[in-house]
Amino acid sequence: MRESFLPDLGVGLIGTGFMGRAHALAFHNARTTFELPVNLKLVALADADAGRAEQCARSWGFDRSHADWQQLISDPSVQLVAITTPNHLHFPMAMAALEAGKAVYCEKPLAVSLEQAREMQRAAKAAGVVTRVGYNYQHNPMIGLARQMIESGDLGQIVSFQGEFSEDFMGDPQQPWSWRCEQAHAGGALADLGSHLLAMARYLLGDVEAVCADSQTVHAQRPATHGSQEQRPIAIDDQTYALLRFANGARGTFGSSWLKHGYKNHLSFEISGTKGTLSFDQERLNELRLYRAGAPGHDGFQRILAGPTQSGYAAFCPAPGHQLGYNELKTLEVHALIQALCGLGNEGPDFAEALEVERLATAIRVAAKEMRWVKVSDI
Amino acid sequence: MRESFLPDLGVGLIGTGFMGRAHALAFHNARTTFELPVNLKLVALADADAGRAEQCARSWGFDRSHADWQQLISDPSVQLVAITTPNHLHFPMAMAALEAGKAVYCEKPLAVSLEQAREMQRAAKAAGVVTRVGYNYQHNPMIGLARQMIESGDLGQIVSFQGEFSEDFMGDPQQPWSWRCEQAHAGGALADLGSHLLAMARYLLGDVEAVCADSQTVHAQRPATHGSQEQRPIAIDDQTYALLRFANGARGTFGSSWLKHGYKNHLSFEISGTKGTLSFDQERLNELRLYRAGAPGHDGFQRILAGPTQSGYAAFCPAPGHQLGYNELKTLEVHALIQALCGLGNEGPDFAEALEVERLATAIRVAAKEMRWVKVSDI
Amino acid sequence: MRESFLPDLGVGLIGTGFMGRAHALAFHNARTTFELPVNLKLVALADADAGRAEQCARSWGFDRSHADWQQLISDPSVQLVAITTPNHLHFPMAMAALEAGKAVYCEKPLAVSLEQAREMQRAAKAAGVVTRVGYNYQHNPMIGLARQMIESGDLGQIVSFQGEFSEDFMGDPQQPWSWRCEQAHAGGALADLGSHLLAMARYLLGDVEAVCADSQTVHAQRPATHGSQEQRPIAIDDQTYALLRFANGARGTFGSSWLKHGYKNHLSFEISGTKGTLSFDQERLNELRLYRAGAPGHDGFQRILAGPTQSGYAAFCPAPGHQLGYNELKTLEVHALIQALCGLGNEGPDFAEALEVERLATAIRVAAKEMRWVKVSDI
Amino acid sequence: MRESFLPDLGVGLIGTGFMGRAHALAFHNARTTFELPVNLKLVALADADAGRAEQCARSWGFDRSHADWQQLISDPSVQLVAITTPNHLHFPMAMAALEAGKAVYCEKPLAVSLEQAREMQRAAKAAGVVTRVGYNYQHNPMIGLARQMIESGDLGQIVSFQGEFSEDFMGDPQQPWSWRCEQAHAGGALADLGSHLLAMARYLLGDVEAVCADSQTVHAQRPATHGSQEQRPIAIDDQTYALLRFANGARGTFGSSWLKHGYKNHLSFEISGTKGTLSFDQERLNELRLYRAGAPGHDGFQRILAGPTQSGYAAFCPAPGHQLGYNELKTLEVHALIQALCGLGNEGPDFAEALEVERLATAIRVAAKEMRWVKVSDI
Repeated sequence: MRESFLPDLGVGLIGTGFMGRAHALAFHNARTTFELPVNLKLVALADADAGRAEQCARSWGFDRSHADWQQLISDPSVQLVAITTPNHLHFPMAMAALEAGKAVYCEKPLAVSLEQAREMQRAAKAAGVVTRVGYNYQHNPMIGLARQMIESGDLGQIVSFQGEFSEDFMGDPQQPWSWRCEQAHAGGALADLGSHLLAMARYLLGDVEAVCADSQTVHAQRPATHGSQEQRPIAIDDQTYALLRFANGARGTFGSSWLKHGYKNHLSFEISGTKGTLSFDQERLNELRLYRAGAPGHDGFQRILAGPTQSGYAAFCPAPGHQLGYNELKTLEVHALIQALCGLGNEGPDFAEALEVERLATAIRVAAKEMRWVKVSDI
Repeated sequence: MRESFLPDLGVGLIGTGFMGRAHALAFHNARTTFELPVNLKLVALADADAGRAEQCARSWGFDRSHADWQQLISDPSVQLVAITTPNHLHFPMAMAALEAGKAVYCEKPLAVSLEQAREMQRAAKAAGVVTRVGYNYQHNPMIGLARQMIESGDLGQIVSFQGEFSEDFMGDPQQPWSWRCEQAHAGGALADLGSHLLAMARYLLGDVEAVCADSQTVHAQRPATHGSQEQRPIAIDDQTYALLRFANGARGTFGSSWLKHGYKNHLSFEISGTKGTLSFDQERLNELRLYRAGAPGHDGFQRILAGPTQSGYAAFCPAPGHQLGYNELKTLEVHALIQALCGLGNEGPDFAEALEVERLATAIRVAAKEMRWVKVSDI
Repeated sequence: MRESFLPDLGVGLIGTGFMGRAHALAFHNARTTFELPVNLKLVALADADAGRAEQCARSWGFDRSHADWQQLISDPSVQLVAITTPNHLHFPMAMAALEAGKAVYCEKPLAVSLEQAREMQRAAKAAGVVTRVGYNYQHNPMIGLARQMIESGDLGQIVSFQGEFSEDFMGDPQQPWSWRCEQAHAGGALADLGSHLLAMARYLLGDVEAVCADSQTVHAQRPATHGSQEQRPIAIDDQTYALLRFANGARGTFGSSWLKHGYKNHLSFEISGTKGTLSFDQERLNELRLYRAGAPGHDGFQRILAGPTQSGYAAFCPAPGHQLGYNELKTLEVHALIQALCGLGNEGPDFAEALEVERLATAIRVAAKEMRWVKVSDI
Repeated sequence: MRESFLPDLGVGLIGTGFMGRAHALAFHNARTTFELPVNLKLVALADADAGRAEQCARSWGFDRSHADWQQLISDPSVQLVAITTPNHLHFPMAMAALEAGKAVYCEKPLAVSLEQAREMQRAAKAAGVVTRVGYNYQHNPMIGLARQMIESGDLGQIVSFQGEFSEDFMGDPQQPWSWRCEQAHAGGALADLGSHLLAMARYLLGDVEAVCADSQTVHAQRPATHGSQEQRPIAIDDQTYALLRFANGARGTFGSSWLKHGYKNHLSFEISGTKGTLSFDQERLNELRLYRAGAPGHDGFQRILAGPTQSGYAAFCPAPGHQLGYNELKTLEVHALIQALCGLGNEGPDFAEALEVERLATAIRVAAKEMRWVKVSDI
């Protein structure tokens, strides 16, 4: 009867798209996979479409549904509000939840402008609640291993970073306009993809001090819809490249493109220090590539496979080589969040960290526009 | 309100180990991920340890728990019995469930002897219920794609098969004895690992007609437990190799080892036909390697990444490159089972197919023991 | 003036095809690359076409040319006879050279029948001269490294061997008949490709004691020439698979195919022992893949790149990563041969070793034909 | 008797180090491998050490030797002067050879300063002779294939370039000072390694218009010699990164480091266009990685292996998959040079092109020093 003595943690989820369902799966699976320090309750699900909200609530195991997200936030049995709606709605929803004193778990990006992000961070600080933003890739146990190698000095002093997040879903010039093409919705290769890489770079190597950058709109117009004759002008970046100077002294390059044919989820980086080099590619998320200089019998890059010596992996499988999938990174993100809510850890980016990611992305945007080096602290 | 018109499907799950939890996750996730044609209900969970049964039932979302698996089978609201207990218990549990007219979903191997497997297959046929055995690797969308290429003739007439399932968890001679070292529990590299590969070979290429084989116990004794001085004699195969002749004319090799250092889940194969070659490795389960002879502009092996053009992938993620994990193969297995239960498909190996896998494994065992070619139909 | 005190070594080369030129390059490059203990002189080149012999002699730096190879053998300034003619001519030429007391460097295969090979080995023994056969792949420094790891016990006791030599140059059923399709010319996938792999297996692991095998002619007829309507019946193996039992206790599989689409020079193997696993593929000849069990910080397969710590590599390049090519393996073969001629080493397969390779190939042929295990010593 | 009607081409080679020998091998192998339109004669070899000059001349097949390189240049039977001496000697030797009206084949870099390079280019233009600079990597048939794909429009409009040339030979801080650490000898990661990549980028994509860059000396001092206590200050770049804007509209990143552990010859790039992506790594010089968007049945990156459909490969081997090595790229370079000398082609970078590479490297150096974007035409 152990759980009966555990406190309840009521979750309210807003949004029923792909990300909404990914959250629903993650909450449930966190409960099945981990011994949680709370009774996790899926209390409410909100979607503007009442029928869909109701149907998804039933399929996904939520107690009730709302067409009005404000009712969900007001619900006294909801302690944690998860936001998976379009980017421009993150701000009003998160602000309302913080106002109500609820913990907030918001999908990335935090907001559609640096000003909004600043306001949200201030509100979170004032509310004194736990916040988290869905930079889920960093919950990969292989990323945890990479960070541990860096922090423990296994790679020596870090010298260089090369990072690239490329996909090709906008590679076809006939791929139509979408909200992702609008700055006002935090669109563009830098915001949509690059911000994940910036969050990752910060997670692994800390602050970036200065940047220089180059952005380009390759396809200046796109059809309004699939096959449409109507063309819409596009002003957002198709690709952005940057030079980065980290506070720890490392230097390197950054790239982000949604035009790079052949790549589907190429969030990748290579980090080199005075004692070794490691690299990672999200398209093979269960692997790290590692070279340790001077280690006896260690003469080449090795491929390290995910396995149960990593706690995040062991939660899912007792045997190595079985591989985690994308959705399990989400489960690990939810688990880290619940631990934080219970005061048992502090993993995962909060609103303050997400604001730093936005600040860095903004610095890159300014550097590209003004064609000059920009100190991130000046943003 | 759609679901209210759907029939209930009550699931009873026996076993709370890693595989039990994997089933629990899979049943839940099938419900969240797919629009099922039934109201899937997690009715009962059984474990000989009543406390553990109770606790897991609560965490995993089952309505009730049993210490006595026979009660679970008798439960009238249970229509489907899932068996995840040690191998020697598959027989009595499945037989009881079939006797009770329940559908049965049994982990692999079907049984610990060919005789048991035959009896189970007869009972299943007599009961006229849906049965499935957990050769989950074949539910991978990439395997589905491979099969479709083979069946559609994309590879031409199939000429060769090279398959190997190697791991290294028994590679250290100090790795102690376990039930996996006992023939009576269906242990050994051939039964434990190789049977997955045989099931896969049959799934992709159909019947094997004749085999020749070689089996070896490399480490003839192992400590009774970790670090123990007591040594136990080992008679089971550490590695087994075979030549295969398929009914479709293809020839090739088969290997299975649990001593092969460096491999963690190396269920791998290469299939070549008169028009191309494809290969797969479970350690990179989201990829196929493909060569198409003579296709214009197609001059080398290509790496095909899993993506939403495959329906099994699309259920989990709308974007390519995000990767499925091991547990999601289990969800796909459960989904295929539910479809079959609803008469909407016939994917996945039933008891008759699992018996064929056992027959083939037995033929390999006989061929190795008697050092001669064996016709599978003679077994 | 050092060289003036060195003895002369006069080379006579028979054949001006691709292999003839490869020998010519190798002799010259051995002279430029190594400090040889002899004055290597390119004395004579023979080709039945007198004009071609003359022209090639001039381009390739030979002193004179012959249309009659017997004149070349009789030439008193020729001490070493290199034979690169079609397979069925190896026997008469090598026998004549041995009769004349000349050292012989013969391309593989040694002969077109086991009987010939036996006679050649006896003649070589009687002549007491240095002989070598062109299994050039084993002169790769990476193969030397592999052998050294095996011999030094780095991999522990060897447990398994998986080897495959596949190409696809006969993959198209319209690829016409050639001498390679005739047993009388040592044709077929086993003799043409597989013998290289058998030589490699012996070089690395020593004697094979017993084999079982399966051979198949997939395309039973082929056009007489490109595009011809005339079809010729084909009796030779398109693919051959075998089980191998090594004298050192290792077990494993062997494959050879010239129908396997996508492969161009896939002489590959994986060798596993109680302490590690290594693998190699001739299509990436400058790499070894290695896993060392239990080495600290060594958690995955590593890719070892060729470099100057290997003497065979250092001869060509002082920096790692620059890569050797196929022709340089031939230069290394020639260098090993010259060392042996000067009594400074014994690397490289002689006629006795080549006979063992033929015996092993014959055992596989018999095992496949009679569908039974064959002891190699019974051949 | 064909060659007797061919004109003679007399080669004089200066330098007997690794590069000198590589040239000697290349000249000889070009003669054996190709049907040259000249009688290539290895006339003279020069080295300040008369004994070494004499000995190498004999081993490498040169007619005579000189201790004084000016005598070699004056030799009337020398029409082509090959320069493989230390970088600071390129200028006086090339200038003397041009003055004497000889063709010049100079190792990279052209000179140790932009001023020298300019003067050399002017002298070459005035002399009206063929000149070539040893950016040998671009003679790889796979690079030829890449260029052809780009020029033919197979990749569409080129959108991005990511290039990196990293090695690790200076990665150990105890690796001592050498001339490579001195600007006056064209040392540093950018000049020593990066210039190869800049030459490659220009060969494939043409002019770069503007750059921004970042350079860093990570190890500010190094031992004077191996194990010495004496430390020398280091001012040269250990790593340099840049953003590139090509005249064709492509954008991208550039990196060069000699500290990046694990890399031995990682001259690598990825080029993406509106129709596909290709990538290359010199550590696997016989492969290209290619993705063609929208090609039927083409769903992933494919690995293209070098083979005889490329003329540069066919010269060495009639079968694919056999692989070329580093030294054969040099042979191809020599062949291209001889063709140019005979008016039969214009492949390979001349002094004018090498000056452009120096100009681009200088632009990167200025951009890094002044932390601003630099137009290359302003240099």
